[in-house]
Amino acid sequence: MKRLTSWVESANNPDTDFPLNNLPYGVFSTDEGPRCGVAIGDLIVDLCLLEEEGVVLISGEPVLDAPFFNEMMELGPKVWAELRARLTDLLILDGDDALSGDPDLLARALISQEDATMHLPIVVTEFTDFYSNRHHATNVGTMFRGAENALPPNWLHMPIGYNGRASTVVISETEIRRPWGQLKPPGQDMPYFGPSKRLDMELELGTILGTGVKMGQPVSVAEADQMIFGYVLLNDWSARDIQAWEYQPLGPFQSKAFATSISAWIVTAAALEPFRTEAEAREKPLLPYLCETKPMLYDISLEMDLTPDGDEQPTTIARTNYKEMYYSAAQQLCHHTIGGCQMNTGDLLGSGTISGPEPQSQGSMLELSLGGKQPLTLTNGQQRAFLEDGDTVTMSGHAQGPNYRVGFGHCSGKIAAAIAQPDWSK
Amino acid sequence: MKRLTSWVESANNPDTDFPLNNLPYGVFSTDEGPRCGVAIGDLIVDLCLLEEEGVVLISGEPVLDAPFFNEMMELGPKVWAELRARLTDLLILDGDDALSGDPDLLARALISQEDATMHLPIVVTEFTDFYSNRHHATNVGTMFRGAENALPPNWLHMPIGYNGRASTVVISETEIRRPWGQLKPPGQDMPYFGPSKRLDMELELGTILGTGVKMGQPVSVAEADQMIFGYVLLNDWSARDIQAWEYQPLGPFQSKAFATSISAWIVTAAALEPFRTEAEAREKPLLPYLCETKPMLYDISLEMDLTPDGDEQPTTIARTNYKEMYYSAAQQLCHHTIGGCQMNTGDLLGSGTISGPEPQSQGSMLELSLGGKQPLTLTNGQQRAFLEDGDTVTMSGHAQGPNYRVGFGHCSGKIAAAIAQPDWSK
Repeated sequence: MKRLTSWVESANNPDTDFPLNNLPYGVFSTDEGPRCGVAIGDLIVDLCLLEEEGVVLISGEPVLDAPFFNEMMELGPKVWAELRARLTDLLILDGDDALSGDPDLLARALISQEDATMHLPIVVTEFTDFYSNRHHATNVGTMFRGAENALPPNWLHMPIGYNGRASTVVISETEIRRPWGQLKPPGQDMPYFGPSKRLDMELELGTILGTGVKMGQPVSVAEADQMIFGYVLLNDWSARDIQAWEYQPLGPFQSKAFATSISAWIVTAAALEPFRTEAEAREKPLLPYLCETKPMLYDISLEMDLTPDGDEQPTTIARTNYKEMYYSAAQQLCHHTIGGCQMNTGDLLGSGTISGPEPQSQGSMLELSLGGKQPLTLTNGQQRAFLEDGDTVTMSGHAQGPNYRVGFGHCSGKIAAAIAQPDWSK
Repeated sequence: MKRLTSWVESANNPDTDFPLNNLPYGVFSTDEGPRCGVAIGDLIVDLCLLEEEGVVLISGEPVLDAPFFNEMMELGPKVWAELRARLTDLLILDGDDALSGDPDLLARALISQEDATMHLPIVVTEFTDFYSNRHHATNVGTMFRGAENALPPNWLHMPIGYNGRASTVVISETEIRRPWGQLKPPGQDMPYFGPSKRLDMELELGTILGTGVKMGQPVSVAEADQMIFGYVLLNDWSARDIQAWEYQPLGPFQSKAFATSISAWIVTAAALEPFRTEAEAREKPLLPYLCETKPMLYDISLEMDLTPDGDEQPTTIARTNYKEMYYSAAQQLCHHTIGGCQMNTGDLLGSGTISGPEPQSQGSMLELSLGGKQPLTLTNGQQRAFLEDGDTVTMSGHAQGPNYRVGFGHCSGKIAAAIAQPDWSK
């Protein structure tokens, strides 16, 4: 697909994440409270205002006057397509001039991204995290269970996932507090209580469900694909030492529950449509319910930077691509429903850490430092096995079109020191 | 504590689950839509109406006109205590006659439980299920991993839990549909897709959080105890064959996601206060954050019945007690927050299956039938290794006082046949 040209000049810069081809949705605030917007170049269009003024019509009732997109998403794919078409028409060069030709409205409806504070774009109803990248599962499995048992026997047959915690999904730039937890160093007999010493990130893509499905109604992969509203960058912060001690037999719990960061802008499935790509060949045939009817991965380049406290120069520690996934979001969602699990608008699915085949394409410190044994050297000369207080992790990503990119902005978080030990006698 | 006498005569029957000492909260509907109520004897008092009429005053804004108790619970323990005191005063013999002395209000505010339909009493924000009963963990661990590795090394140091799925928490009497899933019989090389053949229940108590705690603010066991609004019976339906194949390495997922049933009436922590009891002695000392400052289990007798389709005679298949738990709900909640996980009003925590030491005190078919090897014989002569279509599982429970009981009503569900295999080409 070729680049669409907008009358918003910054949207035509080939390096912007937010050209007219993208139109990602986010919730922002200025002096006024949080409301729905769409990014274009370095600006935000106030969708709440456009709806209020009748320039954008969605349904009988207003749905964009909320500090989340759940109400709009619930209206389904037809409405999503109509809104996207209308916004394209309003923002394209020589399109409908209801916005571009109204100086008073323009002055009120366009906000510089620099002047805005971003908020979670959705109410996250529930959060599920998957484990669907073969490189990551092999790397981590080797460290936890040895090379022979790296890939669990079920891995090639299903997208393995676990339920995460929705209450601690936070917006990019939220400070991430180093968690306390139970730790049991190898060789010691008893655990002790202390701040995590092996704090890690996981580079993932988050899938946002636009529509749900009722209890007891499994969906096919093709149907699941239609339920997905869009994608965000996702950092599944992980405390590896807490995880190693707690995860048997019921999976990760407090090692993952302290925070999950997502990027501010929802890049819609519609914007990513031109970038669909096939998954790799299957080593073992999938059961019929998991077979894809068309390419369902996307060619999205991803990058992860680490910046120590006070430094201005980030070190790029990993470059990878979403097409490295073994299972797509549609397959994950289909699998999530096969027993009858109800899914709701606003549910968030994490892809699982997106690692590539090369050493510098791995999406976690656990992999990049070989379980802490080979620390990375940063551009300032410091070494890192795991994250230190003051470190900022920044993820970015985009799909590359001819002379434009559909970008995700960034997802970042800075590590804050653990709180003082609470007084348990309270 | 001695029995309180009510002017509602059925509340004074020593066998009723709902004497004046109990006052459990539930959401019911008649011809009118779902609204808040409290059970007394065989009646329900319409709390929405009492608030509307000013007979019960809670806060400036009405909070009982909703089809859930979340708004009331959020107001905190002081309000819970005031409401309980006010309702006691209104319902006790020779108390305040604002209700008992107003025939018109009485006619509108008292509803027979027989005429009401019950609904989920809360919006379940998130659901966490624990594994905190030593008998159950040992029995199941022996079957899954052998007697030597039955209790995982972390078990005696922390209440192990995993995040469950809130979207499929349903009210007692909701039909439970046998789930499809991936199954891999022992000895076979490849999994196949089919309805679960090893469908099971788990007898648990559900803890309902009345107040929450913000991200990054761990609470002590004593503080956690104050956040608990009340308890319900909980059936953590489980598909053992799906679970055995999927659960490594990240824990139960679709094997538990198809349904979790809870009883209709929230028995408050206040009503259970006289029944507090100590946990058993600790085999290994707990870390200081998990130490209890007072008895935090409750002496609650529990019973589980199985009734085959068309039968009128249930078979009692297990009798156990909540005091058999190794970790209390307060310890579970404290552990849930130690890394900084935010908890919210409406979060539901499952205790884990409550088994006792004897063979007929085990809370799952997996344990009762020794993994299916020793089927139970029902009173009608039929045998059961796992649940069959048409079977109804009914849980009940109560704390016994002198000449009264604080009861939970029941939590039941009937197994419906699996749906026809969906058309995956859709």
